[in-house]
Amino acid sequence: MLGLMQDWPLLCHRVIDHAATYHGKREVISRSVEGPIHRTNYAEVRARSLKVAQRLDMMGMKLGDRIATLAWNTWRHLEAWYGILGIGAIYHTINPRLFPEQIAYIVNHAEDRMIFVDLTFLPLIEKMAAHFPTLEHVIVLTDAAHMPATTLKNAVPYEEWLAEADGDFAWKSFDENTAAGMCYTSGTTGNPKGVVYSHRSNVIHSLVANQPGMVGLSPSDVIMPVVPLFHANGWSLAFSAPMAGATLMMPGAKMDGASIYELLDTEKVTVTAAVPTVWLMLLQYLEQSGKTLPKLERVIIGGAACPRAMIKVFEEVYGVDVLHAWGMTEMSPLGTVCSLKPEYSGLKGDAKLDVLSKQGHPPFSVEMKITDDLGTELPWDGKTFGRLKVRGPAIAKAYFKGEGGEILDEDGFFDTGDVAHIDEFGYMQITDRAKDVIKSGGEWISTIDLENLAVGHPDVAEAAVIGVAHPKWDERPLLVIVAKEGRAPTKEEILGFMEGKVAKWWMPDEVVFVPEIPHTATGKIQKMTLRERFADFRFPE
Amino acid sequence: MLGLMQDWPLLCHRVIDHAATYHGKREVISRSVEGPIHRTNYAEVRARSLKVAQRLDMMGMKLGDRIATLAWNTWRHLEAWYGILGIGAIYHTINPRLFPEQIAYIVNHAEDRMIFVDLTFLPLIEKMAAHFPTLEHVIVLTDAAHMPATTLKNAVPYEEWLAEADGDFAWKSFDENTAAGMCYTSGTTGNPKGVVYSHRSNVIHSLVANQPGMVGLSPSDVIMPVVPLFHANGWSLAFSAPMAGATLMMPGAKMDGASIYELLDTEKVTVTAAVPTVWLMLLQYLEQSGKTLPKLERVIIGGAACPRAMIKVFEEVYGVDVLHAWGMTEMSPLGTVCSLKPEYSGLKGDAKLDVLSKQGHPPFSVEMKITDDLGTELPWDGKTFGRLKVRGPAIAKAYFKGEGGEILDEDGFFDTGDVAHIDEFGYMQITDRAKDVIKSGGEWISTIDLENLAVGHPDVAEAAVIGVAHPKWDERPLLVIVAKEGRAPTKEEILGFMEGKVAKWWMPDEVVFVPEIPHTATGKIQKMTLRERFADFRFPE
Repeated sequence: MLGLMQDWPLLCHRVIDHAATYHGKREVISRSVEGPIHRTNYAEVRARSLKVAQRLDMMGMKLGDRIATLAWNTWRHLEAWYGILGIGAIYHTINPRLFPEQIAYIVNHAEDRMIFVDLTFLPLIEKMAAHFPTLEHVIVLTDAAHMPATTLKNAVPYEEWLAEADGDFAWKSFDENTAAGMCYTSGTTGNPKGVVYSHRSNVIHSLVANQPGMVGLSPSDVIMPVVPLFHANGWSLAFSAPMAGATLMMPGAKMDGASIYELLDTEKVTVTAAVPTVWLMLLQYLEQSGKTLPKLERVIIGGAACPRAMIKVFEEVYGVDVLHAWGMTEMSPLGTVCSLKPEYSGLKGDAKLDVLSKQGHPPFSVEMKITDDLGTELPWDGKTFGRLKVRGPAIAKAYFKGEGGEILDEDGFFDTGDVAHIDEFGYMQITDRAKDVIKSGGEWISTIDLENLAVGHPDVAEAAVIGVAHPKWDERPLLVIVAKEGRAPTKEEILGFMEGKVAKWWMPDEVVFVPEIPHTATGKIQKMTLRERFADFRFPE
Repeated sequence: MLGLMQDWPLLCHRVIDHAATYHGKREVISRSVEGPIHRTNYAEVRARSLKVAQRLDMMGMKLGDRIATLAWNTWRHLEAWYGILGIGAIYHTINPRLFPEQIAYIVNHAEDRMIFVDLTFLPLIEKMAAHFPTLEHVIVLTDAAHMPATTLKNAVPYEEWLAEADGDFAWKSFDENTAAGMCYTSGTTGNPKGVVYSHRSNVIHSLVANQPGMVGLSPSDVIMPVVPLFHANGWSLAFSAPMAGATLMMPGAKMDGASIYELLDTEKVTVTAAVPTVWLMLLQYLEQSGKTLPKLERVIIGGAACPRAMIKVFEEVYGVDVLHAWGMTEMSPLGTVCSLKPEYSGLKGDAKLDVLSKQGHPPFSVEMKITDDLGTELPWDGKTFGRLKVRGPAIAKAYFKGEGGEILDEDGFFDTGDVAHIDEFGYMQITDRAKDVIKSGGEWISTIDLENLAVGHPDVAEAAVIGVAHPKWDERPLLVIVAKEGRAPTKEEILGFMEGKVAKWWMPDEVVFVPEIPHTATGKIQKMTLRERFADFRFPE
């Protein structure tokens, strides 16, 4: 027997309808790529999105077509998203920080028919045009006055393109499981793989992200997503902000501390979200300038583990609540947020920082488990760590075109590739990447914990721990150290410093000193390269 | 092209799984029907719900079976709900305030196979047993020690019944559109009609109700639903509280001011919800006792329009935020909440009360429109009123067994039977019931507005306005007055008081004084009876 409730599919464009109807005058402010601050509102964004949809329809774009965007966070990018969604086409956000050959790969793999591109990235498209055989049209997110000369024959400025639509159009309606968006993950190995969101998953995910204790946006909030729309589904803020009717501050292309501060200050931003690197730049700017953050209430930090010191400065120096968050492109992306539940709400000082350094607890609809390599579930004691696996309505079940094969376990859980422990209250903490964790005599050693400990030594600038083959224990930890300039710590000093602070069998078997540790473009340690470099290393007898 | 997200049906029992896993130790406190305060938590409630499910399964209850409850808000009622949901059976909450013949009608119409009943209502079931041919089992929500002698052969105490399950059981899984719950509306005319919620609608509705600015529960909240689970799907609080991980305070059978105050105070309740009548009793108790409400942050008032004076006292005397809410059994039930959006957040005093007296604005997924009798949409200017129609995923599309026929308009909107206006910011205010509104020369006159105005006269105890047939204008307003004891206002005094405060053509054509106005069991004016009484009334020439 079925319920007798209305058939009302969860479609993304209903979100902008809601915002336009009940929060129509609420501002959408952008730092335009051209320079000036631009002000519009949800009613206008909705009206122009409808024109985007109409214009795409006029060009023969249809349900299921992939339409790329290569753009910063501005009102035009937002309009393009909702316009694409409104005809059942699929927004495919491209990360401009990928290598050009990766961009070529994903545009062709996705078979993008069109692209919306910011002025910033037009030269990239011009240079690579020959590699994009499927791309029929290039819409440059600017107006005729700012349109540069271009070698592209199929490029037109957005405003003039849009003006050809009269707005006499209605959104298309279709099944809520229809594909809505696409975002490729840039794995460290192999080609990027496409995650395909549905209208349903985006809507459910946004409702979930807006629960109190999660991102929890309200109409009183001014939210600035510094995290770009091309990063992991834009942390879903393009949906959750209009769903909540929150004022939206889109920061455009400038991510430096002074530019971000200027917007936080003048637009009275109450909530903002980005990766730790952005906040490092902001905190440096604040320290140098002596400015403060009186309006900002909470900062969402994700995309990489947030350093404890950063949480401390935001909380204790600037009085801003840190919401340490964790997610993945494959999770739409929100997995957990570290807000304080009653069990922890009375904590102060270091004890509070200990909790805030964890990645947090999930909202309803995100299920987690930790398992050993055989898939056996491990206890939630805040110590035992295992492979972190997740299940829910906004989590990938497969990649586009079946790349990567079967990715769920027999209970339908997706393996995140992270290693984590979970405490009795459901707070999860990442301890390693699965490919980095050291397996010693059947037990696991967290390289991140050892690194965090080693960098506490006053002479250590940077530390990396990798597993190296061992005849008896399979693998044992090798600690790689970059000393601070002018310092020359010894192996004994380092190990002596670490002793007693971790289990004895976790202690590195050897310490090596190097002038430099290799990093990825985003600043992460390239452990694979390190492992290759030390592949022939032998521990002393 | 479909998205590639996991198939994770929105099932209600996943809500209690979430609460048990991530908020397992959070308390569920009840005033038991037997008397003492009872304390449990979400982990235990979930474990016992699973036993209920197992026990129902053992008895041959299956997907789609209707299982009634006739009970106050306690942990056992909550366990019964989730147990019923967990095998795909349907909780059918019965309102004990219905007339016995109405209860007999709905039990038989629903074909309930079982009933969970509180001690309070056991005599009712005993008396009516012969009228319930489909009822195979009666589970009395108590233990053997408190089980009274009963004439029922098929009645057993809950605790002993439950003890026969060992908990080695798994929830059933099924399509999310499966019926989850049933609640009959008690219309003033005709038989009650059954609204059938689905698992999907309940889950979406709870996510929506928990958005900030709506009910917005968080793990830090202690929520006391004084509104019973049998009233309009229990305002969905049996789902939204565990979904949020909020502490749940179930008040049992005692609704008087002192009893409610005691729980608010000792259990540090932060949010509570009920109809105005309950709050009238509480406010009287507070005034008499001189007590205050320092812990209570917000009170949700719905089920009937909240008097302006009540909002004023809560806000200004006790410092409690009032969330005036509107909904219907057919809407799961939340339609709107009157939280202050930025457009209104700066208001003070009377201007603020003007807004808080409105029923408010809807969350995402509730669409509203107002129309005239022909279905033409009317403007949102805060003045023009029309039939209020709604659409969304948790709104009824039909009644059980097709009673009442087709209930949606051609665009899929459900006619609420209310008459309302909506302002430019989307705030809705009910001005009348559609069957009460007066149609004068093609224009509508709000009887509620006229009544509110008339009771402002110092000599008037109660006022009712009805439409009476008029040869030229179709209908014209007749004002029926009950004077205060010892007062004898004249028609001229009353009309003189009203003049200039409403449009001239709204002014009542005649005033009649009566000793008493007829009321329903829940205190509403019986306008139908009044209209019958004055059916032969003729306006003076």
